[in-house]
Amino acid sequence: MSLVPVLGDDAMSMEALAVIDDIRSTRKTDFVNNFWRVLANDPAALKRTWESLREVMGPGTIDPLTKELIYVAVSIANNCEYCIRSHTAAARARGMSEAQLMELQSVVAMASETNRLAIGLQVPVDDVFKGAPPAAAFSDD
Amino acid sequence: MSLVPVLGDDAMSMEALAVIDDIRSTRKTDFVNNFWRVLANDPAALKRTWESLREVMGPGTIDPLTKELIYVAVSIANNCEYCIRSHTAAARARGMSEAQLMELQSVVAMASETNRLAIGLQVPVDDVFKGAPPAAAFSDD
Amino acid sequence: MSLVPVLGDDAMSMEALAVIDDIRSTRKTDFVNNFWRVLANDPAALKRTWESLREVMGPGTIDPLTKELIYVAVSIANNCEYCIRSHTAAARARGMSEAQLMELQSVVAMASETNRLAIGLQVPVDDVFKGAPPAAAFSDD
Amino acid sequence: MSLVPVLGDDAMSMEALAVIDDIRSTRKTDFVNNFWRVLANDPAALKRTWESLREVMGPGTIDPLTKELIYVAVSIANNCEYCIRSHTAAARARGMSEAQLMELQSVVAMASETNRLAIGLQVPVDDVFKGAPPAAAFSDD
Amino acid sequence: MSLVPVLGDDAMSMEALAVIDDIRSTRKTDFVNNFWRVLANDPAALKRTWESLREVMGPGTIDPLTKELIYVAVSIANNCEYCIRSHTAAARARGMSEAQLMELQSVVAMASETNRLAIGLQVPVDDVFKGAPPAAAFSDD
Amino acid sequence: MSLVPVLGDDAMSMEALAVIDDIRSTRKTDFVNNFWRVLANDPAALKRTWESLREVMGPGTIDPLTKELIYVAVSIANNCEYCIRSHTAAARARGMSEAQLMELQSVVAMASETNRLAIGLQVPVDDVFKGAPPAAAFSDD
Repeated sequence: MSLVPVLGDDAMSMEALAVIDDIRSTRKTDFVNNFWRVLANDPAALKRTWESLREVMGPGTIDPLTKELIYVAVSIANNCEYCIRSHTAAARARGMSEAQLMELQSVVAMASETNRLAIGLQVPVDDVFKGAPPAAAFSDD
Repeated sequence: MSLVPVLGDDAMSMEALAVIDDIRSTRKTDFVNNFWRVLANDPAALKRTWESLREVMGPGTIDPLTKELIYVAVSIANNCEYCIRSHTAAARARGMSEAQLMELQSVVAMASETNRLAIGLQVPVDDVFKGAPPAAAFSDD
Repeated sequence: MSLVPVLGDDAMSMEALAVIDDIRSTRKTDFVNNFWRVLANDPAALKRTWESLREVMGPGTIDPLTKELIYVAVSIANNCEYCIRSHTAAARARGMSEAQLMELQSVVAMASETNRLAIGLQVPVDDVFKGAPPAAAFSDD
Repeated sequence: MSLVPVLGDDAMSMEALAVIDDIRSTRKTDFVNNFWRVLANDPAALKRTWESLREVMGPGTIDPLTKELIYVAVSIANNCEYCIRSHTAAARARGMSEAQLMELQSVVAMASETNRLAIGLQVPVDDVFKGAPPAAAFSDD
Repeated sequence: MSLVPVLGDDAMSMEALAVIDDIRSTRKTDFVNNFWRVLANDPAALKRTWESLREVMGPGTIDPLTKELIYVAVSIANNCEYCIRSHTAAARARGMSEAQLMELQSVVAMASETNRLAIGLQVPVDDVFKGAPPAAAFSDD
Repeated sequence: MSLVPVLGDDAMSMEALAVIDDIRSTRKTDFVNNFWRVLANDPAALKRTWESLREVMGPGTIDPLTKELIYVAVSIANNCEYCIRSHTAAARARGMSEAQLMELQSVVAMASETNRLAIGLQVPVDDVFKGAPPAAAFSDD
C-alpha cells in the first residue's frame, strides 16, 4: 500500500491528467504504471518529473538501451525494487537479452566490490587520474 | 595516505608480481595504478579480484564502453572518488565523448531522483512488472 | 517475520517492561509499535535507544514536526520501509498535511539528484563554503 | 579538480549564460557557485536542474529553512561533502542557528541508528502503519 | 518473484550443475539456496562468485563466525533482506547466540550513528590517524 | 575544516569537559580525538553519544576486537573516511594484524558483491530462512 492513493484517471486533477495523456502518447500505450499514478497526487511534481525524464531518456549521445542499463544499475545500487523491476522491463522492451541482463548484474556486482576495496583501503588517486579536464564539453560553435 | 602501503614492484611478493605482470600484458602498458599496488599487500585478494575483473569486463554481450559507463554509474551511486576518476578515464580511453560523460551524469541523477520518489511514497509494483520471468537465460544447447 | 520475536508484554523481562511503560506514558497511549517489542529482546539496547530518541526528539530548537520531516527524509535515503511508514504516521499526527508530505518527497528527490551530480562530476567546494566556522555553538553563559 | 571544467562566464555557451543570469537575479547576488559552473558544460542539464530546484525550493507548504534542513539531512545520508557544505551555508543564510545545526545532526544520527535496527532485525510493519492512505492529496476544487 | 528463473537441478546447464555439486559437497548438505539457483542462469558468474566466496569465507586469519558477523553487518548497511536472513542463519549455524545477534545490531546501529555525525559535521581526520602505514602486510619471507 | 569548531579544552563548557575527562579516564590516555572535540559544541549530544558508545563497545558477548572489525566494516559500507581511519587504528590497538585487516577488506567486498546480486536479481528468500525465530533472546531467569 502506497503512502498516498494510486489515482485512477477519474480521481486526478485536470493538470495531472494532461501529463498522464502526454505519457500515453509519448509511449504509444494506454497503460500508465503506478509510479505516475502516485505522483499524480502532486500535479506539479508529476509534470516536472515526467518532463525531466522524457528529456533525459530521450534522444542524445547515449543510445536508449544503454540508458536503461545505466538506470537499472543505479536502481540496484540504491536498492529500489520498484525501479529495478520497471526499468528491467523497459530494458527488455528495448531489446536487452537475458544474457545481457545477467552480464549487467556481474558488472554492477564487480563495481560494488572494487568500490568497497578502494574506499576500505583509502587508495590514493593516481596523479594521472587527477589532471586537468579537457576543454569545455559543449560550445556554441 | 592509504591504510596499507602502495607497493612498488620491488616490495611485492612473487605471487603479487605475477598478477601485476598479467595486468601489464593484458592492458598493454607498463603503468599499474594504485588500486592494484595497494591490493598487492594481499596477493590472493589481488589475484582473485584481478581475474574476476578481467573476466567481467572482458568480451561478452555488452560492449566495453557500455560496461565502463555502468561501472562509473555504480561508482557514483556508491560515492567512490577513486573509482569515479579511474573508470571515467577508462571510459574516455574507450571513446566516451565529453557530451556522453555529461549525459551519463543526467541519467544517474534522474535515476537517483525517481528511486527516492518510488521508495519515499512506497509505490506498489504493478502486476505487469511481477510476472513470471522468461525461460532460463542460458542453456547447453 | 522478524529475526527475533516480537514480544508481548507477558514475554518481556521486567527491565524491558519498565521501558515500555515509559513509552506508554510519554506518548499517552497504550499502543506500543513492533520496533520496541523487537528491541525488547535486549533490554539494555531498548533502554538506551528509547532514552536517546526521547531526548533527541523532545523539546529543543527545532520544532517537533520539522524533526519528523527530517526523520522521514533520512529514512527514505536509507531505504527503511518500517521507518518511512512509522515516521510518516508520526508526522501526520503532528499536523503534516498531504501537500506537505508530497512536497517533502520533492525536496528529498531533488537533493538526491543534485547530490549525485556533485559527486559524479567531483565539483570542487567553493572557498566561500570552506571558511572558518563561527565561534563555539554552545557556551556556559 | 572536477571531471569537466569549472566554466567562467566567458567560457559558457549563450544558453548556459542565460541560466546563470537567472540564478543571479533569483538569488540577488553576482556570486555563482561551482556546482552550476560545472553543470554549464551541459546547458540543457543546467537549465533543467536549475528550473527544477527553483520550483522545488520555492514557495510552498514547507517553509524555506525547513527545506534547507531536509536538504542537508539527505546530503549527509548520501555523503555529499559539496552539498553538505553548500546547503549548510544556505540554511545559515536563512536563519539556522548553530544550536539548530547541532540538533539537526542529532536527528539525522538518531534516524540512521534506528533505520539500521529496523532493517537489521527485519521488524514487521504494524498494521496501523499500513492502512489505506487518506483521499487524494490534491484536487481541482 | 525473481527477475530470472530459480532453476531446479534439471533446468541447469552442465557447467552450472558442477558448481552446485561443489556447493553441496563443500557444505555437506543437499540443500542449495535460491541465491545460487538464480545465479545458475549465468554459469560463468555462478562459478566465479562461488569460488570467490569459498576462498574469502574459508580458513584464514579471521575466524568463521566473526566473518559471518561482518557479512551480516555489511548486509544490514546495504539493506539486503535476502543476505541479512541467509547470513544470520549461517552465523547461527556457526554458534552465534541470540545475545550476540542483538549485540551485533547495537554495534551496527552505533557505527551508523557516529558515521553520520562525522560526515555531517565534516570532522577533520586527526594527524595520528593519517601517519604512514606499517610495512607491507605480506611478504615472501 | 569542520562545520563547527574543533574545541580545545579551554573553549568547552563545563558539561562538555566532564565528558572529555571521562573519555580520558576510560581510555587511559590524555589524547582526545577530533570527533569528540567537534561534538563538544553540543554538550548533551556529546554526553549521550559517548555514554552509548561506551556501553555498546564495552564488555558483552562479542569480544572487543571483533566489535572493532564490525565497526570498520560498517564505516566502509557507509563510506566514512574519518570512521574508517579512527576505527582501523582502534582495531590495530586491539591486536588486529595486517593480514586480518586485508582479510576484513575481502569479506566486506564479497558481501557488497553478493548483496548487489541478490538485490539486482530480486532473489526470493528461501522458506528455511523465514521460519519463526527462536524463543526470546533474553529473560529474567
